[in-house]
Amino acid sequence: MKSLEDLGNQPAAWLSGQGERGDIVLSSRVRLARNIAEHLYPQRANESQHKRVVDLVSTAIDKTGVAKSGFFVESASIDEFTRDILIERHLISKEFLREDRSAGLFITEDETTSLMINEEDHLRLQAVSSGMNIRQAMTMVSDLDEQLGAVLEYDTDPRLGYLTSCPTNVGTGMRASVLIHLPGLVLTRDMDTMLSQVNKIGLTVRGFYGEGSDVIGNLFQISNQTTLGRSEEDLIESLEKVTRQLIAYEQDARKRLFADAPDQIKDKIWRALGILGLARVLTSDEVMNLLSAVRLGVSTRIIKGVDYALLNDLLLCTRRAHLQRMMGRRMSADDRDVARAALIRERLWPIVKTMDYQDAPDNKPDTAIKEDD
Amino acid sequence: MKSLEDLGNQPAAWLSGQGERGDIVLSSRVRLARNIAEHLYPQRANESQHKRVVDLVSTAIDKTGVAKSGFFVESASIDEFTRDILIERHLISKEFLREDRSAGLFITEDETTSLMINEEDHLRLQAVSSGMNIRQAMTMVSDLDEQLGAVLEYDTDPRLGYLTSCPTNVGTGMRASVLIHLPGLVLTRDMDTMLSQVNKIGLTVRGFYGEGSDVIGNLFQISNQTTLGRSEEDLIESLEKVTRQLIAYEQDARKRLFADAPDQIKDKIWRALGILGLARVLTSDEVMNLLSAVRLGVSTRIIKGVDYALLNDLLLCTRRAHLQRMMGRRMSADDRDVARAALIRERLWPIVKTMDYQDAPDNKPDTAIKEDD
Repeated sequence: MKSLEDLGNQPAAWLSGQGERGDIVLSSRVRLARNIAEHLYPQRANESQHKRVVDLVSTAIDKTGVAKSGFFVESASIDEFTRDILIERHLISKEFLREDRSAGLFITEDETTSLMINEEDHLRLQAVSSGMNIRQAMTMVSDLDEQLGAVLEYDTDPRLGYLTSCPTNVGTGMRASVLIHLPGLVLTRDMDTMLSQVNKIGLTVRGFYGEGSDVIGNLFQISNQTTLGRSEEDLIESLEKVTRQLIAYEQDARKRLFADAPDQIKDKIWRALGILGLARVLTSDEVMNLLSAVRLGVSTRIIKGVDYALLNDLLLCTRRAHLQRMMGRRMSADDRDVARAALIRERLWPIVKTMDYQDAPDNKPDTAIKEDD
Repeated sequence: MKSLEDLGNQPAAWLSGQGERGDIVLSSRVRLARNIAEHLYPQRANESQHKRVVDLVSTAIDKTGVAKSGFFVESASIDEFTRDILIERHLISKEFLREDRSAGLFITEDETTSLMINEEDHLRLQAVSSGMNIRQAMTMVSDLDEQLGAVLEYDTDPRLGYLTSCPTNVGTGMRASVLIHLPGLVLTRDMDTMLSQVNKIGLTVRGFYGEGSDVIGNLFQISNQTTLGRSEEDLIESLEKVTRQLIAYEQDARKRLFADAPDQIKDKIWRALGILGLARVLTSDEVMNLLSAVRLGVSTRIIKGVDYALLNDLLLCTRRAHLQRMMGRRMSADDRDVARAALIRERLWPIVKTMDYQDAPDNKPDTAIKEDD
């Protein structure tokens, strides 16, 4: 990707499905909130002060040399089409798209690292990795943080740590999260218990599209709630531990499901594939739920020949803005549902049609605990 | 078919889909109720009298020579498995299976003509044709009726006509019916109006399995209500006329559906095919509804390569008794749902997998009124 126009023409690197436990953990993400000392925070600053911050940071990006691997754009130059694509690709937030202030965005070519200027804080740095790789994401975002920190003077307090617009971010300014697929726990109705326990130990659970978004397609975003008084290492370790536990519980739930109702589970999986392969109208929510069933099928080796990269890419490229860009025009919801079904058929049917009508005799669902658990 | 044991091993001739308008009218059926003069009717007779009637009729069958093309069995010799198969194939009624009386059954090898002895009346003669062919069915059943009537003395009244156990059958003793598939009228919600009009002109509407059975899979059985005071010709003409009208209304409904919501209708059709092709658990009712959507698809040429004979056969061979005979054992409802899905996949998936993910550019739904309308 050399410019914003190329965005979405290739799958995002973090959706490659190649990372550790990519069958259950789609991605790991770390973001850092930073502010520049002696500059009013975005909510308080006026437009010339906003502009000054954008200039400061973009100059810093140039100085550090990271600009070579990516590009910087001012928010005003991003057209509406592209804005929606950036949101769908988790590269910017809705908060970032305020018309009352200058803002800027830096993205590396592979979309793994990005930086919003003048969102809620002066800087919001983000890195994302495929699979269960919180530490890799942390290393990437820290690298950018250190390079910029060497040029910019961050606003810190010797006792509290990094200062931020919202008190919940004061301290490390860090939020680490994993996007995890837990259909087994949802089907066994154990998810609510699981969530309340996760909440008790200071973690938050959200849907695929962050704060306030519903959980669809059994995709949960789990992140740390507090950043104050704990080290980055401490927060990451805690999130990693909980994620590994959730994976183990999910494996166990799948094992029970396949023991108790193997035909019903297989049915759910194969029907999802049949519908995705041939339907003519598909809403975005239905696609997420059907892809969830297919992912469960691939993960348990009920379905062979479909890879996670394709399933992950379909999650993104079937969303509103991506569809509209592909079709080169704005579309009504009805038109999108038709275009979405056509896109999915084109990608999936050539694979589905090669499948056999009966399970191979040795095709037992694979719910074994993997070696790296 | 040389004996009852072969029953169900080959598709019934009347489900060949070859008859006139076989896309919409599955079959045409005529049955005649007859009683033998000077013999008590089945409800009033004692067992020795029942036996006497069975002997009389079976002897008559032998004398007429029709026995050469079929076989006769006494009801007591039919095992439970086979009884259920006979019911599913519309060759006997539940009423026929009374344990308190001798009864007999004659079926021609191709299952087009049959005769129950000691059901509600001494004789219930039936003939069934593929498609819209009431006259052919009438010819077949009349042929058997005349041959038997030459040997047996039927109970008649010079003013009323044939006398029967139930007053509703007095007169011609005839009930003619068509099994008609009307998904368009159901989808446009015109079916209720249509049904009340059909009732007003003296016709009855039932489900696939006769009196009291629900309408499933948009299959309606339409038959004459009265037999008294009207000639056979008159009754058949009236049923034929209504059937042709219903076909025309159905065509019109389909045209409107494809004009108003083409994607939704195609979606319904293709999803049904995808689910039938890959599901692992299917109830009988769901199968009937999915087959209805596929039949609509074949009839409108949205789906090519699937024929009516297959769809009709799947309607029968996926039912409880047929499934159990195929598997050679009694099965729980859950086991049947799994076996049913496996059978359908085996028959349908090899066809479905050859299909293309996109409609051919010239593949417009065919809702044109056919020449023979």
